[in-house]
Amino acid sequence: MDPKLDLVLERVVDVSKELLWAAWTQPEHIKKWFTPVPWMTVDCEIDLRPGGIFRTVMRSPEGQDFPNEGCYLEVVPNEKLVWTSALGPGYRPIMRASGTTTTCEELYFTAIITLEGHGSGTKYTARVLHGDEASTKKHEEMGFYQGWGTALDQLVAFVKTL
Amino acid sequence: MDPKLDLVLERVVDVSKELLWAAWTQPEHIKKWFTPVPWMTVDCEIDLRPGGIFRTVMRSPEGQDFPNEGCYLEVVPNEKLVWTSALGPGYRPIMRASGTTTTCEELYFTAIITLEGHGSGTKYTARVLHGDEASTKKHEEMGFYQGWGTALDQLVAFVKTL
Repeated sequence: MDPKLDLVLERVVDVSKELLWAAWTQPEHIKKWFTPVPWMTVDCEIDLRPGGIFRTVMRSPEGQDFPNEGCYLEVVPNEKLVWTSALGPGYRPIMRASGTTTTCEELYFTAIITLEGHGSGTKYTARVLHGDEASTKKHEEMGFYQGWGTALDQLVAFVKTL
Repeated sequence: MDPKLDLVLERVVDVSKELLWAAWTQPEHIKKWFTPVPWMTVDCEIDLRPGGIFRTVMRSPEGQDFPNEGCYLEVVPNEKLVWTSALGPGYRPIMRASGTTTTCEELYFTAIITLEGHGSGTKYTARVLHGDEASTKKHEEMGFYQGWGTALDQLVAFVKTL
């Protein structure tokens, strides 16, 4: 882990890791909480195995769609979920223009979600790895902490309705 | 699998898949066969697990060193080995300049080695996935078929000495 290249969101939440896992791994659930309103997640495809696709389509308040395609790397039910935007399904590399990262879909990162039991709740950690400081800074400027934090608020509120 | 984006080397060889696996997964072995002579592999680091490093240093006949760092994605002993140059150890993305791929170290690819029993020998398949046709063409022009084919000749000759 590298403090110059990683962005980390860690929080203890009062819901079980089983419910958090379900919300992270089922397309119909993802659409309910994944994108901070007024953005929406209008499509989601999940093939939950190493090498399988994780694809979402985010819609801006202005109605523009932003597709994001990634690949799962590790799937440990109720404990750990790893995927990357650097690879597509079947581990095929995804090519992006360098030096022009303006949207999330153009940014290379690997996300590691870990869920650990904590009393009756869960210690939730989202760690996002980048390949250089420019990408890290870009992701932070795109609003990583507020965006992923708000998404986590929505995630917790959503699983309480399950 | 995509014929426009994949390069494939497939051959039946008269050595066991267990020996081929050993030669692919031990640094001291890799140095003996990995690079078509007069090139040499002068260093190799292997952490044989998903997320672990696969690093080699190739030395040109002129004495120039070319480091290559990648990350294992799947490790199925004696059957399947998958790694990518798009990620480094711990799945961290590796940043490369785009449009300037001139050496192997600058090329994004994922390699899938599969070993299947075939009589007393092994059906050996090396499939290399790329993200766009330009990368595929570049890899082919760098001598993929001759390079990987010669390396396989050296691999088979080496394991017969074990």
